[in-house]
Amino acid sequence: MQLAVVSDNLMPAEELDSAYLDRGLFFGDGVYEVVRSYNGRIFALEEHLQRFANNLTAIRITGIDIAEIRQRVEKTFAAAGLANAKIYFHVTRGSAPRSHTWNDKIKPNFFLTIGPVDDDTQEKTTGIAVCTEPDLRWRRCDIKSLNLLPNVLARQDAAKKGCSEAILVDEAGLITEGAGSGFYAIFRQTLQTAPLTANILPSVTRRYIIKAAENIGLKVREESLTTQEAAQANELFIGVTTKDIIPVIKFDDKTIGDGKPGKWTKALIEAFRKFTL
Amino acid sequence: MQLAVVSDNLMPAEELDSAYLDRGLFFGDGVYEVVRSYNGRIFALEEHLQRFANNLTAIRITGIDIAEIRQRVEKTFAAAGLANAKIYFHVTRGSAPRSHTWNDKIKPNFFLTIGPVDDDTQEKTTGIAVCTEPDLRWRRCDIKSLNLLPNVLARQDAAKKGCSEAILVDEAGLITEGAGSGFYAIFRQTLQTAPLTANILPSVTRRYIIKAAENIGLKVREESLTTQEAAQANELFIGVTTKDIIPVIKFDDKTIGDGKPGKWTKALIEAFRKFTL
Repeated sequence: MQLAVVSDNLMPAEELDSAYLDRGLFFGDGVYEVVRSYNGRIFALEEHLQRFANNLTAIRITGIDIAEIRQRVEKTFAAAGLANAKIYFHVTRGSAPRSHTWNDKIKPNFFLTIGPVDDDTQEKTTGIAVCTEPDLRWRRCDIKSLNLLPNVLARQDAAKKGCSEAILVDEAGLITEGAGSGFYAIFRQTLQTAPLTANILPSVTRRYIIKAAENIGLKVREESLTTQEAAQANELFIGVTTKDIIPVIKFDDKTIGDGKPGKWTKALIEAFRKFTL
Repeated sequence: MQLAVVSDNLMPAEELDSAYLDRGLFFGDGVYEVVRSYNGRIFALEEHLQRFANNLTAIRITGIDIAEIRQRVEKTFAAAGLANAKIYFHVTRGSAPRSHTWNDKIKPNFFLTIGPVDDDTQEKTTGIAVCTEPDLRWRRCDIKSLNLLPNVLARQDAAKKGCSEAILVDEAGLITEGAGSGFYAIFRQTLQTAPLTANILPSVTRRYIIKAAENIGLKVREESLTTQEAAQANELFIGVTTKDIIPVIKFDDKTIGDGKPGKWTKALIEAFRKFTL
């Protein structure tokens, strides 16, 4: 006999909603994506779906039809009627009594939410403060998995210090990326960001930021930054699907530039906007 | 308006069971414990509850009354009527629309399952094979969190190679622990296991294994092992709450000792059994 307790309610385990036995909950055994729309059009959906497919393969979840995921995303987007929507979806390996190993016949769980994007006008106009935090994440952060405890702890620590994002620093003293964003610096006419390795998310936004940089005549350098180097940049910003580019005007205790979003960052925001029209 | 999709069902997000919005699912934002009973008595419950309290503090989940958790465990154990039970429980930070940061007013979720322990007679008698796998976990494995994707991937890889457990090896070539167990070697009259650091679970079973070792006259050495050293041990075993001590007779391709559980391991199983009477 298997029994379960949810809060204070004792019941036979077989009466549980399958959500309580989700391997996503027991192990973080799943991958996710976030996409957004600009003015009624979902941005870069195919790139996100391609990455999602790669991530499913990476953690060996099989039997997912990406065309079906695309349909669900598009159908829900149409039903929601939001011009500027944020869409989150994940697939977990499925629900089963807790056991590290899985049976290949397990059926994956799909889940999606959609709502309006947060207004980022203020952040884009005045910029944000960020704080550095140690990068405690696992060694495959190129996989967008549900194992995000180090990310949320770092973000909360940053928030307590009045920062909007935590910038993660590895054991070698190099910046990897933000807890939920990519990290970018501008030195004179060069955009610098960490190269794509096993510990950096292959960000879709990053691809468009690099394209935007080239379009406005910035050189692009893919090389990791130390915190000291970042603090001396002419401009800093983060890149994230839901808000594209957000200027950083404070990096730990150091004011960046004149404490206002820099000219290249503003130009990049404009150049990025053209992709979304 | 927030909409959600579960499998193919579109619904307003507010109609979702709170389990679908559990931060345990979105982020692995929770901690867990496993305890077992021997012949009608839960073993080392206080030590497990103490560790659970420490883990809640480590990830800053507040407002949990450990006395209440103890009551729930004991009440469910009594209700299940199982002499040899495996009890799993976790607390997550709570349910809320997905956002990295949390509001301090969020109410944690408690979940527990109980069922019979698996019969380990065969494994104890003949021993098991283990395989080494790279340790890709985060840098705070002393916290028993729900971020277990690297553990389940390693265990599944090991299972595919015919192994019952994955023994994790860090970037320096040192064995940390098993994907779901502690790892122990015996060299002549010395028991060796990794010291407790930020990347080793402070295992309750480990504490009793060390006590058992001292009771039977083994020296105890807390020092990390390389895979080469482990392969040359006289005896190997793993330690895990649900099965206490399980002899290891094959380590990757290498047969340990004469391919049968060693004499010290058998003596340790006996010495451990005395704690559980």
